[in-house]
Amino acid sequence: MSVLIVGSTALDSIKTPKAENPRLLGGSASHAAVAASFFSPVKMIGVVGDDFPKRYLQLYRRHGIDLAGLQVKPGKTFHWSGEYEVNLNNRRTLLTELGVFESFTPHLPDTHKATPFVLLANIAPSLQHHVLDQMANTKFVVADTMDLWLNIALPDLLRLLKRIDGFVLNDSEAHQLTQEDNVFAALRKIHKLGPKYVIIKKGSHGSILSGPRGIFICPAYPLRKVCDPTGAGAPFIGGLMGNPAARGPVDKNIRRAMIHGSVVASFCCEGFGLNRTTRIKRAHIDQRVKELEKLTKF
Amino acid sequence: MSVLIVGSTALDSIKTPKAENPRLLGGSASHAAVAASFFSPVKMIGVVGDDFPKRYLQLYRRHGIDLAGLQVKPGKTFHWSGEYEVNLNNRRTLLTELGVFESFTPHLPDTHKATPFVLLANIAPSLQHHVLDQMANTKFVVADTMDLWLNIALPDLLRLLKRIDGFVLNDSEAHQLTQEDNVFAALRKIHKLGPKYVIIKKGSHGSILSGPRGIFICPAYPLRKVCDPTGAGAPFIGGLMGNPAARGPVDKNIRRAMIHGSVVASFCCEGFGLNRTTRIKRAHIDQRVKELEKLTKF
Repeated sequence: MSVLIVGSTALDSIKTPKAENPRLLGGSASHAAVAASFFSPVKMIGVVGDDFPKRYLQLYRRHGIDLAGLQVKPGKTFHWSGEYEVNLNNRRTLLTELGVFESFTPHLPDTHKATPFVLLANIAPSLQHHVLDQMANTKFVVADTMDLWLNIALPDLLRLLKRIDGFVLNDSEAHQLTQEDNVFAALRKIHKLGPKYVIIKKGSHGSILSGPRGIFICPAYPLRKVCDPTGAGAPFIGGLMGNPAARGPVDKNIRRAMIHGSVVASFCCEGFGLNRTTRIKRAHIDQRVKELEKLTKF
Repeated sequence: MSVLIVGSTALDSIKTPKAENPRLLGGSASHAAVAASFFSPVKMIGVVGDDFPKRYLQLYRRHGIDLAGLQVKPGKTFHWSGEYEVNLNNRRTLLTELGVFESFTPHLPDTHKATPFVLLANIAPSLQHHVLDQMANTKFVVADTMDLWLNIALPDLLRLLKRIDGFVLNDSEAHQLTQEDNVFAALRKIHKLGPKYVIIKKGSHGSILSGPRGIFICPAYPLRKVCDPTGAGAPFIGGLMGNPAARGPVDKNIRRAMIHGSVVASFCCEGFGLNRTTRIKRAHIDQRVKELEKLTKF
């Protein structure tokens, strides 16, 4: 079964004290789509400018990603530039050029409108709504978000929560949304806003799922060296959504799907942009999943 | 098999926006000893003043704690007083009266000198050394610590690390000791300082063990409401040390022992001081251990 993924498709220029990485392939849809592609066929919805490097289109294709829903518009691709400090915890944005992304309206090809699994990766909630408006017969719809939308588009986001099956956010966003410091108290409040499944991401501390079968404490894969931690939420949720799509009933499979997402995110953190993720094979993922089984057994 | 536990025995006065709790039973040895007592016979080493309430001695005895090594000296019991803000993350110390603790020199009764399992709970490293100096034929010695000793007694602590089997500290202390932000990189550096087992506590995010069988990611029991989070490190390590003592080879059992410690710590967080911990039975602990199995299975 396919996964439809909508989100941002961007070029990221990332500076660290040791290196400059100009115009890497980035954006929530790119990360999520490549991650999901290890498990399922992926249909990506997004927009790029006519400056978008051909090698990145080839990269998508190498991962079997269906690009019928990727618009190529005259103008510049969304470009973000940021600089990291030595310890990687502090990052500052140097530049944000929205380019063709500013007027993006996702259009779904007819072939895409009945895709059962839908990932609304991080993007304005109004665009997430717009994608759902075009769809029928979905089986499992999950949305990701970021603090920006809590700040400037909360009513849209709250409306969205009534329309989706699963919602993913990080711990500080969960606190912002519910005013609860405690993750488990926050989960309870978020369920009341609509979604049956809620996942709170805690970075290197793993993530927590709350769903019909209760709580699941999902570990992060232990990494001794993190190269680029930002945006690891997108491959996590991409891997998760690819995985149950390939494996049947969500309720039964979502825990193992989270573990797979967590592992794909761990590879992502080991390189800049998609550098590491695009160099792994499914066998590397399966190996780390097995390791996580051992690392958590008692 | 018995566990010998040395540490502080104190009276804690804890103020919150909702309540005042004067002169609760506290201190690292009290917390660790009560936690360990659910699993093993405990011999406690400490000092209290002649103002120490009889009901607290009775409490120790109800938990079967051997008090032959508890000195009762003329003077005041160590008294700490602190105040919490609404969200419980911010605490300020109002008062610290060392009392008889200031001149504490732990003396081990002859019957205690060959106890196989030894927990050097949080106390000055010089006193932890002094206890080890009196012992022979130990099987498994674990030390806890706090940032204070890293600041004012680092040489003593570094010497101690060469003499113990296991070392327990929290993530910020691990960072302070190794200058490593990454927990797994820090673990590697701490092993080089001596201990075969290193456990890094991460509060509500659980803890990480590094030992001869590799890494273990230990979850915290999910609590929707935390009453008093401070000092939960002592019941964690107390429960851990009580548990393998009761169950044979450390290498094989330490993971399940950590889970038991984690569960005892969760009960501790649900009440002020030892209020909640002293009201539970072994069956309550076993129930939460079973739940943790379910909460982490994938």
